[in-house]
Amino acid sequence: MAPKAAAHGPRDDRGVLAARILREARASFAEHGYAGTTVRAVARAADVDPALVYHYYRSKEGLLDAATTPPQSFLDQVVTAWQTPQDELGEQLVRRMLRNWDNPDHGPLLRAVLQIAGNEPATREKLRLIIEHSMMGPSAQALGEPERLVRSGLIASQLIGLAFMRYVWKIEPIATMTEDDLVTAIAPTIQRYLTSNVA
Amino acid sequence: MAPKAAAHGPRDDRGVLAARILREARASFAEHGYAGTTVRAVARAADVDPALVYHYYRSKEGLLDAATTPPQSFLDQVVTAWQTPQDELGEQLVRRMLRNWDNPDHGPLLRAVLQIAGNEPATREKLRLIIEHSMMGPSAQALGEPERLVRSGLIASQLIGLAFMRYVWKIEPIATMTEDDLVTAIAPTIQRYLTSNVA
Repeated sequence: MAPKAAAHGPRDDRGVLAARILREARASFAEHGYAGTTVRAVARAADVDPALVYHYYRSKEGLLDAATTPPQSFLDQVVTAWQTPQDELGEQLVRRMLRNWDNPDHGPLLRAVLQIAGNEPATREKLRLIIEHSMMGPSAQALGEPERLVRSGLIASQLIGLAFMRYVWKIEPIATMTEDDLVTAIAPTIQRYLTSNVA
Repeated sequence: MAPKAAAHGPRDDRGVLAARILREARASFAEHGYAGTTVRAVARAADVDPALVYHYYRSKEGLLDAATTPPQSFLDQVVTAWQTPQDELGEQLVRRMLRNWDNPDHGPLLRAVLQIAGNEPATREKLRLIIEHSMMGPSAQALGEPERLVRSGLIASQLIGLAFMRYVWKIEPIATMTEDDLVTAIAPTIQRYLTSNVA
């Protein structure tokens, strides 16, 4: 059977379809995990033939890889965060984390990564790289690499735990606290992990 | 086919078999998630007939429920934690969390709960109750319930994030830092969530 959706035609449409498949894949990986996601169900949700999913992404592994790779817009945001003055960094990191989760592309991607990192080594490695590169800007501080990684790990432990409570499990009252209340509560923790004597 | 293992006989052996099935179920749920776990695979790992798994636990849902219900030893530990003097509670909670994860029964149970809570509402509800009841002893402080739940949620966000980094994903250097180094880094965060003005 020919890919039904490919009949839609020119390149622009194909980009749209690939993006739609990716969006449904992220939602499914985030909601059902890796084992609970099938190419067939993703194709159905995206309203395309499964053959088109294989055409664009080769395999379920390829689809997972594409669905969990941070887009450039995510990485760009990380870089600009580190241009904040040092004594405002704790607050900035909390606010940016919350906004990333509220972003309709980044939120489902992050949720898929967190949901699957426990089961799939390739996704876990991706998470490790996100943590290593995004939690603490190397150029922002004159730190040795071992100390930078301890501080990044501590920051990640707080921000990722917050993300699970608020966005993945939606446990109250954390799920519905205002951004400002969360900043008041958590920014001092991040600030301390960034700059105080923690080890 | 008659349950092979039931042939082993009397009640004591049956308790041993039920415990062995539960241990393998926790390991499988923790490693492969809910969708990635089958009764057949758990039975094979426990070296019993699948019929025996159904006999003890009725269904895959029943097996998940048993595998993610905290044992009395876990709940007892929580109660005693709250007898610590208030200014040592932050340190106590970090140390107890680390020891729970190192405990050969509690660690796999906690890992299974965290791994599955994102996908299965019943497990998520169980997690919510663990957080609500174990992160902040209600009698230890003269707090209104809304404030107690904010503080519990903040403590959970830090301790659960730490658990993911150290035990589920094993991301360095958090995975191999000493207990004392983690206490130095994280106990002040917990102490602040317990007693300072956070919202």
